[in-house]
Amino acid sequence: MKNNLIITISREFGSGGREIGEKLAIELGIPYYDKIIIDKTAKETGFCAEFIEKEEQKVTSSLLFNLATNTYTFGNIMSQNYGQSLSDQVFQAEAKVIKSLAAEGSCVIVGRCADYILKNQFPCFNVFICADFDKRCERAVAKYGIAKDDVKDVIKKTDKARIRHNQFYGSQDWGDARNYDVTINSGTVGIDNAVQMLKALIENYN
Amino acid sequence: MKNNLIITISREFGSGGREIGEKLAIELGIPYYDKIIIDKTAKETGFCAEFIEKEEQKVTSSLLFNLATNTYTFGNIMSQNYGQSLSDQVFQAEAKVIKSLAAEGSCVIVGRCADYILKNQFPCFNVFICADFDKRCERAVAKYGIAKDDVKDVIKKTDKARIRHNQFYGSQDWGDARNYDVTINSGTVGIDNAVQMLKALIENYN
Repeated sequence: MKNNLIITISREFGSGGREIGEKLAIELGIPYYDKIIIDKTAKETGFCAEFIEKEEQKVTSSLLFNLATNTYTFGNIMSQNYGQSLSDQVFQAEAKVIKSLAAEGSCVIVGRCADYILKNQFPCFNVFICADFDKRCERAVAKYGIAKDDVKDVIKKTDKARIRHNQFYGSQDWGDARNYDVTINSGTVGIDNAVQMLKALIENYN
Repeated sequence: MKNNLIITISREFGSGGREIGEKLAIELGIPYYDKIIIDKTAKETGFCAEFIEKEEQKVTSSLLFNLATNTYTFGNIMSQNYGQSLSDQVFQAEAKVIKSLAAEGSCVIVGRCADYILKNQFPCFNVFICADFDKRCERAVAKYGIAKDDVKDVIKKTDKARIRHNQFYGSQDWGDARNYDVTINSGTVGIDNAVQMLKALIENYN
């Protein structure tokens, strides 16, 4: 790599985007950030890591949700989080962590709307990994230990949550080629081919 | 390449998809089909090549358009093209030509919903090439000789026509990563990098 570059990887559940990110970071000799973002966000907010992991795929979806989760202030008493849902607080804390990691130099960041958060502020190479539904089901059963009977429902629900999360906090068209430098169908191209292709591209980038 | 493979390239106007297709075909030592599809369709239909070139980006958009262009039959007299607009006739003849070219062996085909036409019938590797609007304007002025004052309008109109054409005759979500094996932003990745990346991928494919 000629210059600092933040490689963001957005991915469909079960497409192997995380594995591609990890392997690519090793090939390029740069840090890979995924779970560490949760740990740092936990420290930043005071929430526990498990809570953040559950909360980060949610969005502020209704007035009732806001009413139920907000810290309200009355009169002259103002709080820093006035009007923010827990999801909003987690998103903003994660965005701060992602920016601080990006400022340290080249790295691979998986998920969490990093492409959107870092846009126009850091040099980014944005990747989207997808795969056909059946391939994702196979992988989710084999790699994540999800029961065969449940896997279709789990993937459909996760897709729905990710699309909503991205529509709310990130770019409007999640998965539209025009929002990324490269997109890869890992089901047809293969995980290792995808890694080698990205490595070659990024080494020639800038 | 290990086995026969039809590489289809869908592309935004001004993204250099055609140049990538031509160069890739040379690198892989396989035929490249673009204008030849028009010539063969002309022979197939009896329409002249210039007419086909204009017609192939259109769609059957309204009842009035149908009424204006259809060959109507009444009573027992039936025509082969009964109920078909000129656009439909051109599309169907092109589809026949594309299938016959694909049947001859590995090749690169640019545009014309070839990904959709060949789906599930031939082994395909489907690529989408895009680029940011400003980059496409630059290229359209430099390479296609479009006047600077006109280029934004020309690109917007061509985008609109291609999206409509693809919605009508091809896949519903033109440019959605999930419809392709790989998509590339040629404006950031570069034309020659894109060619090398695709060559390496396809040589390892199957």
